Amino acid sequence: MTPIQVSLADRSYPILIGSGLLRDCEPLRELAAGRQVAIVTDTVVGPLYEAPLRAGLGRAAAAMITVTLPEGETHKTWGSLNRIFDALLQARFDRGCLIVALGGGVVGDMAGFAAAVYQRGVDFVQVPTTLLAQVDSSVGGKTAINHPEGKNMIGAFHQPRLVVADLDTLRTLPARELSAGLAEVIKHGAIADPAYLAAVDRDLAALRACEPGPMGEAIRGSCVIKADVVSRDEREGGLRAILNFGHTFGHAIEAGLGFGQWLHGEAVGAGMVQAADLSCRLGLLAREASEGLREVIARAGLPVRSPAWDYARWLELMSVDKKAEQGAPRFVLLEGIGRATLRRVPEAPLRETLVACAG
Amino acid sequence: MTPIQVSLADRSYPILIGSGLLRDCEPLRELAAGRQVAIVTDTVVGPLYEAPLRAGLGRAAAAMITVTLPEGETHKTWGSLNRIFDALLQARFDRGCLIVALGGGVVGDMAGFAAAVYQRGVDFVQVPTTLLAQVDSSVGGKTAINHPEGKNMIGAFHQPRLVVADLDTLRTLPARELSAGLAEVIKHGAIADPAYLAAVDRDLAALRACEPGPMGEAIRGSCVIKADVVSRDEREGGLRAILNFGHTFGHAIEAGLGFGQWLHGEAVGAGMVQAADLSCRLGLLAREASEGLREVIARAGLPVRSPAWDYARWLELMSVDKKAEQGAPRFVLLEGIGRATLRRVPEAPLRETLVACAG
Repeated sequence: MTPIQVSLADRSYPILIGSGLLRDCEPLRELAAGRQVAIVTDTVVGPLYEAPLRAGLGRAAAAMITVTLPEGETHKTWGSLNRIFDALLQARFDRGCLIVALGGGVVGDMAGFAAAVYQRGVDFVQVPTTLLAQVDSSVGGKTAINHPEGKNMIGAFHQPRLVVADLDTLRTLPARELSAGLAEVIKHGAIADPAYLAAVDRDLAALRACEPGPMGEAIRGSCVIKADVVSRDEREGGLRAILNFGHTFGHAIEAGLGFGQWLHGEAVGAGMVQAADLSCRLGLLAREASEGLREVIARAGLPVRSPAWDYARWLELMSVDKKAEQGAPRFVLLEGIGRATLRRVPEAPLRETLVACAG
Repeated sequence: MTPIQVSLADRSYPILIGSGLLRDCEPLRELAAGRQVAIVTDTVVGPLYEAPLRAGLGRAAAAMITVTLPEGETHKTWGSLNRIFDALLQARFDRGCLIVALGGGVVGDMAGFAAAVYQRGVDFVQVPTTLLAQVDSSVGGKTAINHPEGKNMIGAFHQPRLVVADLDTLRTLPARELSAGLAEVIKHGAIADPAYLAAVDRDLAALRACEPGPMGEAIRGSCVIKADVVSRDEREGGLRAILNFGHTFGHAIEAGLGFGQWLHGEAVGAGMVQAADLSCRLGLLAREASEGLREVIARAGLPVRSPAWDYARWLELMSVDKKAEQGAPRFVLLEGIGRATLRRVPEAPLRETLVACAG
């Protein structure tokens, strides 16, 4: 497949999608040539894919270390991040080093943030091994760790030099995580491209079965949408916020249940149902379109009902969202499938949505 | 005084130098207007200058909190940084907030780094209250915390929106800290401007007595040099490294003795003597010029002799310097007063310098 380009002046980079890329990826070898290379992975992905990646890098690197972090969102903390710094400093890695993130979104966010702040910034590469990371989190340069008071509260915009999405890695992905990835695929269609959403809807069975043809196309389509949005608004000055469709509710669900109880994509699935419902109540979206979206989300194997918290609890959880302005949450809403908008909403319809979508 | 401008496209900002600025600074009030404002200070500076600064800000801000950190280089850690995040999140400060660093270099580095990574980046203002911070660390956007393995190893380039240097705050500065600030003043002359160095040399007694006229001029001259270098090389791609004259040795002294034993400026004082001596041994600098520099450093009240460690210990301490390439340290050297250059050096002259400058 032709690489997709994220266009950001001197921070532009290609996204490569295909099979067998872990073992054989010339652009990655070129980037690693003669440098100190640190592979950052976790206890689940490392045993599966570190060996092929190392084999693929061959003798290109001047030095290579691996940092294996504990797996899961609950470990997306300063403690894990500091393990990366400890390893880099003990190995005397300098500013010219290269960090390679091998894993899902959590590993990518942490390795990317480590790269953003190690010696005030070093290069890094994303090698996403989950669907969610391949279609979303590995592209766009958002990196972060969590704080007990909120998800991704401490972080940086730091673009990778290259994204390598090897489709083969999805074969070992549990069904639940595949569904979680489909949430972001559906999101990209909902905010930007009705035709893409229709194709995903049509191919949903094949996607859940991880068939390479449709899966490669779905990932490609998502990356094209995300690359376009990021290229136009790198630092979330405006447009980029639309990528947060379903996320104001979703982040609240994750925080309220405790990080790691629901997968991020699951919370986003239920959150998109809420955001679409809210869009209907504000007269922006036809009820039929909202129901259609709900159905795709359900068929993707995602939850469509949210926790039954009271209004005050929801508001408290949503007020730490990074889109909030002086404590008032803002929501990404749909003005039809493919057209997203960011706004504050009155209390009444928000209350109705929270009741209507609670399960 | 006319503001000095740091020219960095959309990240440009003014440096204001003068008396009474804490209590009355219109540009600062304008920047704070209607925003959530967090003053970050420490246990020494806070009791002296938080009240006038708050009075100066008046009712401009929409909300105001103060975070008071423990004082000193040993507290330039993740633990202190996290206290800032805790306070910001508990007060529900959003992305539109403004962080004001009120204090010396340590407070500025930490508050600046907090601003760089809180919600992936918020605005901040430097209000430096030590000579070292006014002439050096508050300008240029370098922010960081220390790691047990090395100083400033974790950080970011994040430019302030404004620097406000109130000369009145220097009156409470201990003599030892004033001398430490003069180290960076001397450094700026040594690397960029022989006439400025000569003027500093001439005014040294007045500067040590903190006379407002000469002090204002010295600070202004230093900021002009620093702003010029930073404007031409924001992210230390090349030129900016010359600001590290004396710092490869200096950082090693700080790390080897334990952070906080010598003040940063003291270590830089002794480090500049070493770097000048090394420049002589490499045939770059006349011995007379090196001796002259040594004399100014001594008269500024700074140490001119370094610890008597063996070669292996020095090399180990210097190999974590951020200018190092794959473990080999590089040094900023002088090719005459006012002309700096970055290079690796052979072992023999380096050994000679370490012996000759040890006290």
